[in-house]
Amino acid sequence: MTDEAGAQRTKVQQIADDLKAAIERGDDGFRPGDRLPGENALAAQYGVASLTARRALKLLSTEGLVESKKGAGARVLSFQPIRRHGIPRLASDQWGSGKSIWSADDSRAPDVDQITVQQNASPPEHIRTVLDLGPEEKACVRSRRYVMEGRPVMLAASYLPQALVTGSPITQADTGPGGIYARLSDLGHAPTHFREEIRVRLPTVDEAARLSIPTDRAVIKLARTAFDAAGRAVEINEMTMDTAAYVLDYEFDA
Amino acid sequence: MTDEAGAQRTKVQQIADDLKAAIERGDDGFRPGDRLPGENALAAQYGVASLTARRALKLLSTEGLVESKKGAGARVLSFQPIRRHGIPRLASDQWGSGKSIWSADDSRAPDVDQITVQQNASPPEHIRTVLDLGPEEKACVRSRRYVMEGRPVMLAASYLPQALVTGSPITQADTGPGGIYARLSDLGHAPTHFREEIRVRLPTVDEAARLSIPTDRAVIKLARTAFDAAGRAVEINEMTMDTAAYVLDYEFDA
Repeated sequence: MTDEAGAQRTKVQQIADDLKAAIERGDDGFRPGDRLPGENALAAQYGVASLTARRALKLLSTEGLVESKKGAGARVLSFQPIRRHGIPRLASDQWGSGKSIWSADDSRAPDVDQITVQQNASPPEHIRTVLDLGPEEKACVRSRRYVMEGRPVMLAASYLPQALVTGSPITQADTGPGGIYARLSDLGHAPTHFREEIRVRLPTVDEAARLSIPTDRAVIKLARTAFDAAGRAVEINEMTMDTAAYVLDYEFDA
Repeated sequence: MTDEAGAQRTKVQQIADDLKAAIERGDDGFRPGDRLPGENALAAQYGVASLTARRALKLLSTEGLVESKKGAGARVLSFQPIRRHGIPRLASDQWGSGKSIWSADDSRAPDVDQITVQQNASPPEHIRTVLDLGPEEKACVRSRRYVMEGRPVMLAASYLPQALVTGSPITQADTGPGGIYARLSDLGHAPTHFREEIRVRLPTVDEAARLSIPTDRAVIKLARTAFDAAGRAVEINEMTMDTAAYVLDYEFDA
């Protein structure tokens, strides 16, 4: 990168940082639905080229803070991130004091708008290892997409040992009341322990398309492993979340 | 975006996806320290322009999977992500079976290489609200940077009510054995409950510079609030983590 390109890049970032701060504070003119200053107005305000201002607006759009429509400029998104509680609500019931750092929607869960169930699938190696499947053993894979306010927010693929679930409602699209965990309980393998692992990376082409996000917006990969009382891993749910759509929340005692 | 630009972008992504998959599988020639195929070799292999191949390699570098040095091409990074356990190790001791989805370094914690303590600071509004500080009340802010193998991996800023900690070792760079939580305990405010909130966004210019990461690599914002037995928020630690450096891990019982 040349020095000039570097300096321009820094200006792009500084403009973007200013706009983001105004949106986070909820300044006048920067509330959900408000139209942001256009690239020409920003260029004049900061004394930069229009292209520089346009790139700053593009950064906000990559992060999912604004929505740009052709000819209509950029508007601050009114979408409220979803608050996902990783740990059962016991702690929240006792402690929940509204004292959360970031605002997010606590009250609603996204809906499933796509579901496929594949039996006798060959799972990826890292899934095979954790589910303790031999080289010939298969998995049942339940793939879902979740939407909120018509917007895709999460992909989820649950892997279960095929031999454990064959013939059970887990192999159906509709698993019945209580879902997968209730059915695992019926089978004598109620989940009693969970592990959630989280990392962040850029989406694959397919993930970006299914989530309707730009390929340069990162996704959260959250793998939730359910263990039964004997310590056996009975399900892995690999989630892929739009980072603009979620705040993750874990509450626990010392 | 024109159709042609879109098609080129998809090719960039597909090449990057292939390379990432090879690195994740640990294929021959794609292990830590290995030199990746150069842009010309990739361009020939995929039948694309060199620029397209170069952009694919740039994507891997943005994600922190490879390290590019001028004239030396791109090498697969040997850095192993750090596994951060959010919840005290009780559960892990009982259950830890090595059954983790993603490989990460469990054994070592990063070191602090920069620390500043600011007393009587005016905290940001969201911190003020959660710490229940009046408009005139101040905070003590402890800012640290953490490094692992010489590489910056995390920034952390702890906010505590000034009135609670004035005159205590919490206002010193070295807080003594057991750190901030032990000193809060000495003051009669031992943390007994925690809330961790996680979201992901692009870094500010300053965060990117302090973490030595590109401005287009996302960071994890993790805010950990500590509550005492009376339910009072006594500390908020706002962490900013290089997404390429961390796997977060939460284990808990149903």
